[in-house]
Amino acid sequence: MTRLPTKDIDRLAGLVAGGDRKALAHAITLAESTLGPDRDAAEKLLTKLLPRTGQALRIGISGAPGAGKSTFIEALGTYITKTGKTLAVLAVDPSSQRSGGSILGDKTRMSLLARDPQAFIRPTPSGTTAGGVARRTRESMLLTEAAGYEVVFVETVGVGQSETAVAGMVDLFVLLVAPGSGDDLQGIKRGTMELADLVLVTKADGDLSEAANRAFGDYRGALSLMRPKYLGMPPEIARVSALSGTGIAESWSIIQTLWQKLKSAGHLEELRKMQVRSWFWSEVQTTLVEALGTDPAVAAEAGELEKAVLAGRLLPEAAAGTLIRAFRKA
Amino acid sequence: MTRLPTKDIDRLAGLVAGGDRKALAHAITLAESTLGPDRDAAEKLLTKLLPRTGQALRIGISGAPGAGKSTFIEALGTYITKTGKTLAVLAVDPSSQRSGGSILGDKTRMSLLARDPQAFIRPTPSGTTAGGVARRTRESMLLTEAAGYEVVFVETVGVGQSETAVAGMVDLFVLLVAPGSGDDLQGIKRGTMELADLVLVTKADGDLSEAANRAFGDYRGALSLMRPKYLGMPPEIARVSALSGTGIAESWSIIQTLWQKLKSAGHLEELRKMQVRSWFWSEVQTTLVEALGTDPAVAAEAGELEKAVLAGRLLPEAAAGTLIRAFRKA
Repeated sequence: MTRLPTKDIDRLAGLVAGGDRKALAHAITLAESTLGPDRDAAEKLLTKLLPRTGQALRIGISGAPGAGKSTFIEALGTYITKTGKTLAVLAVDPSSQRSGGSILGDKTRMSLLARDPQAFIRPTPSGTTAGGVARRTRESMLLTEAAGYEVVFVETVGVGQSETAVAGMVDLFVLLVAPGSGDDLQGIKRGTMELADLVLVTKADGDLSEAANRAFGDYRGALSLMRPKYLGMPPEIARVSALSGTGIAESWSIIQTLWQKLKSAGHLEELRKMQVRSWFWSEVQTTLVEALGTDPAVAAEAGELEKAVLAGRLLPEAAAGTLIRAFRKA
Repeated sequence: MTRLPTKDIDRLAGLVAGGDRKALAHAITLAESTLGPDRDAAEKLLTKLLPRTGQALRIGISGAPGAGKSTFIEALGTYITKTGKTLAVLAVDPSSQRSGGSILGDKTRMSLLARDPQAFIRPTPSGTTAGGVARRTRESMLLTEAAGYEVVFVETVGVGQSETAVAGMVDLFVLLVAPGSGDDLQGIKRGTMELADLVLVTKADGDLSEAANRAFGDYRGALSLMRPKYLGMPPEIARVSALSGTGIAESWSIIQTLWQKLKSAGHLEELRKMQVRSWFWSEVQTTLVEALGTDPAVAAEAGELEKAVLAGRLLPEAAAGTLIRAFRKA
């Protein structure tokens, strides 16, 4: 992508704010780029659009592969657009490069939403770290908000740090779990459940109805052992079937009720301020550590220092001190 | 504390290595100090003693207030010293300042261990952040190892980040839970269970036997829903009574078996390398961020930048860039 002159950024911002889909897609591509001039342009664009952001209901949706995320998003998504609301679907998937396929790369996965004029689906950016993807997804989310989307789904698969990253940018976090044998239940990552405001047992239909009921009971029990994220707002649990449509309206109703609760108690404003503050300081840390990591004087020393530390010849604290001195002198 | 000349550090190192309890206590005080000259001396001392560290079995012990940590540590601790092993007990308790009482400040809390010549109990350092306490506790642990202690307990109360910090410096993490009503069970912090290699239901005696059995079943169910930290090493669970002595020998046997498993599979070496590497890089980050935080040029800008970010006038990324430029120029 080439460097954009300021007047082009102004024009792009205007188009995004007007809800132009092609302009939005282009803006997200700009935000996803790692090239310096693109980053500068993305920053200018986002700064210009910031006042137009923040009004959307931000929902994180997670679940292990096979939990039924695509079909659920398709079902809930079309339900939401039928109520007249607009919806953007983004994804954080640091594993897409490893697994060889992007979770949103193929729009046929959500064929109804992909053709829905009130929905905007963005394929997964790939080829970066979880942190990098998270940063871009946050910016993509702001861009879709500036374009007027009223509900944003941020989808993630249950791997690595991506769930925590997504939980740190949304208002509500939904965890999808599939019914199955006891073995399947073990697949839930330790610590994932603690992020959830709503757990949905999927595929609650046909042959799996009984298993779904058992899973519902098991997860309800496990959730009851945990301290709620917000006082007076324990995590909810429900059964859904994207096939029969069971529980879709209920899920949306639960999500809206939780969001209203958050808003009315002032928690939402607080939560978002906290998220922005920690985003700021994590950007400071990331940028600092990046600067440290790309500094030739530091690179020359880091390897040797780490080796000495691992061999037990040097105290980590002493090695860190040496590295920082090299950095500040450079 | 005054600056120690090099020959005094050499002498202190010799005394610590010889198992001198007063010298060890003095060395830990040095490591706990925040004064520059003390820190330098502590670093020199630790570097000298590093080759003598690493042989101990490191156990983290956590549990909410009232879970019975003191009585359990006293019971298991005296059991261990009776087998001929030496034991050091340290504590991470960032809350001690707030709550007005250090969890290990009063040695009468563990009166048997306090008089046991094979045990070394160190009261909690207080008045610092969780991160600061963790750093010092890690150094104190190394000092006790250099002094020849074969088993180290690092005790923490289930608040804030201290559990994660402790889990990051020990080989095995033990979580104590008290039986009780359903309400009590909710007190377990979300995410705490994921750290545990062994969950112990305490007070499994007398009137509480039945409740302990129920809690045992509940927690076993909750644990079975979680993915084990190490493949083939699912978290264990047992019932103990410090009062009657039930389960104390069993706990020690489980801990030793888990440690042998870790060692034989090469996991222990891997785990400790990972811990040291992440300690190194977290020291680098901490030191960098401290340097940034104490820089007057940065301090002058940080407040205004954060305000602009929170007000939605400035992108966190842009604000971070501005701050870093101020830092590197300074």
